This record gives sequence, C-alpha cells and structure tokens, in this order.
Amino acid sequence: MKAIFDRAQIDAMERRMRANLINCLAGYKSANLIGTVDSAGHTNLALMSSVFHVGANPPLMGLLLRPHTVPRHSLENIIEQGCFTLNAVDRLLYRQAHQTTARYPRELSEFDAVGLTPVFSEKLTAPYVAQSPIQIGLTLVDRQTMAVNDTVLVIGEIIEIRLAEHLLAADGQVDLHEAGLVCVSGLDEYHVAESLGRQAYPKP
Amino acid sequence: MKAIFDRAQIDAMERRMRANLINCLAGYKSANLIGTVDSAGHTNLALMSSVFHVGANPPLMGLLLRPHTVPRHSLENIIEQGCFTLNAVDRLLYRQAHQTTARYPRELSEFDAVGLTPVFSEKLTAPYVAQSPIQIGLTLVDRQTMAVNDTVLVIGEIIEIRLAEHLLAADGQVDLHEAGLVCVSGLDEYHVAESLGRQAYPKP
Repeated sequence: MKAIFDRAQIDAMERRMRANLINCLAGYKSANLIGTVDSAGHTNLALMSSVFHVGANPPLMGLLLRPHTVPRHSLENIIEQGCFTLNAVDRLLYRQAHQTTARYPRELSEFDAVGLTPVFSEKLTAPYVAQSPIQIGLTLVDRQTMAVNDTVLVIGEIIEIRLAEHLLAADGQVDLHEAGLVCVSGLDEYHVAESLGRQAYPKP
Repeated sequence: MKAIFDRAQIDAMERRMRANLINCLAGYKSANLIGTVDSAGHTNLALMSSVFHVGANPPLMGLLLRPHTVPRHSLENIIEQGCFTLNAVDRLLYRQAHQTTARYPRELSEFDAVGLTPVFSEKLTAPYVAQSPIQIGLTLVDRQTMAVNDTVLVIGEIIEIRLAEHLLAADGQVDLHEAGLVCVSGLDEYHVAESLGRQAYPKP
C-alpha cells in the first residue's frame, strides 16, 4: 500500500515527524566531522551530514550549514581562518561524532568533550581528527547564503588528503567499507555498508 | 602507513585516478534518479549522486548538475517545466539506474532505454519511476551557477511524497534498509547498508 502526502499534508505534520521524514528522503548521507579553530586557538568539531562532491579538477567539496544552530561556531571559524578539515566518521567513531552535536559552551572544545584527538598539519590551521581514517584539508573558496531558507553553502578547495595507504587502490578508488565508514539516515540513524561491486562505464 | 597528498600531488595525478579519489572523499552518497519531461512530452531520466537535504520546513532538497555532461537535458527540462522528480534507487534498480548515464540520443527516453516505467501524478508534469520505493515530486525554487566550476545548484521544494506505507514509522523515520536503498562511492561502486540503530538526542 502506497502512502501519498501532498504539500498540505506535509505542512500539517507534527514538526518532529516532518523533520524525520524530510531528512530521510535524501537517502543515505555521508557522515563527516568538520574541524575548525578560532584565532585564539580554540578548536571546534561538528558533525555534518550534508557534505557533497563538487568537482575533481580543481578538487572541491561543498557543505550546507544552518547558521542558527550549533555549527555557527564552525562557520565563524571557517570565515575567520579561511580553512577547515573534513574527517570521515567510521563505526568506531560514530557515537562520539553524534555527541559533538550537543550544545556545548564555546569555551569547551568538542574534541575534549567527546574524547577525540586534534592533530595538525603545516598546510592549514584547522585541526584534523586523529582517529578518522580519511582526513581532508580545505581552504574556503566560496560562501553563499541560500535565499530559500538562510542555510549557508560553503565550498572548499582540497589542499591535503591523508588516509591509510591500504584503503587506496591504484586507480584512485577508496575502499569505504574497509575504512569502516558509516552513513546516516534522517537525523540520528547510523549504518555500515557492504559493497555490491563496481559497474562498468555505461554505453548505449 | 598513512598516505598524504598535498595539492601539487593531487594536481599531478592521472585524470581518472584523481576523479576516482576525489569522488570517493565525500563518503557514501545517495543514489537517486531524476525524472523530467520536455514540452513535447519526451521523458528523461538521469542518475544523481549529489542530492542533499536543504531544509524540512519548508521541505527542500538540492542537487548539483554538471552542465557539460548528459544531465543537461535534465536541467533544460527542469527550467522549462519548473518541476522534477527524485526517485530513490534500490538494490533491484541500481544496474538500470547506472545505465541511464550512458550517452543516449535525446529522442530516446532513458525509461525505454533501460526498461523502467514512467508514472505520472496530477501534481506535476515530470514522471516518477514506478519501480522506485521512494518517489518525491518537486518544483524548482532556486538555481545558481557556481562560480568555482560552473556546476549548477538546483533547489526544489517538495510538493508530493509517495512511498510504501510499511517503510514509514509513526515518528516520520523512513526505513531505508527495508526499502533496499543503495548508496554510491566514487563514480561506479554501489553498496547496501545495515543499520547500527538510532542515537539519542545528545546532551552535553
């Protein structure tokens, strides 16, 4: 039996139900911790499920930030320092990653609050998460506020990639299953994935 | 052993290797078929791995399109008709979904080329994919060309949701595993996922 909801029914839903449903509709989402630092050296860590590929040459990644929720510290730091890190979340990390979304006071770094270790590179001031199997350093290249709902689109250019050597195939494919990465559905459900294999380049 | 690539090394990579690597860095990506139609009634279907959640109230979803590749037919149709559908790809569908990315001539609908069935709603002109377990109808509300690489950001407002009733929990959570949804890594690897369960709302 098919459930069909038109716009009036969606708008009439209880707030939390609508949030769960709409957040689930995008399908499986990647889970990344965004690492930032302010000019006083205070580190910040926030879980993001809205990171997406923008381009390979130049190498670009994007994410959407809600300015009125906790990640505004991340946004302020990104703007101030011009850089951030993305750190893939694996099955050993996901509970701590989820916990970073609690409303900690600014003085308390989420690294300390959830027990993760910042690690630095000479390429950028933002901290990586030592425990993450795939660490990406980016500089801010574009930022726009979406007129539709005031979310902020941030685009970063990749300046460094750090990952365990055995995850990387000769052709550039990264073994996300071997890395133990999780994905997210909705606001709070985590999943591990199993490969069905690769498909050939399609021809008509 | 950690592999570290700085920007000069990334830029020096063989083109296909860089494309695979950078496309893998975003982690698991959702797989959706975007359904469109032109004014002559020609339907079009294209696989997208760049669909993301934008907001729940109003209900908004976004996607990035590369204007210089096949999905330009999708973009032209979205602009002309002001609407499109997103259809979640499951484990029964993913081979056909992947095949839609072949360069078919415009006269041949990908529905016919890969053997999928268009189905229509009175709410919009764009076709749904009958075989998809989660079907979403959207109207175009924003469109921007990204200065960084000319990809086109499309934002749609959800006007209809159609899914099998048993997938939807009372609190709005959709069971993506039960729906058999796949996710994608890189350009061509498909995965099924297994839930690790839901996490409680985090408090400091």
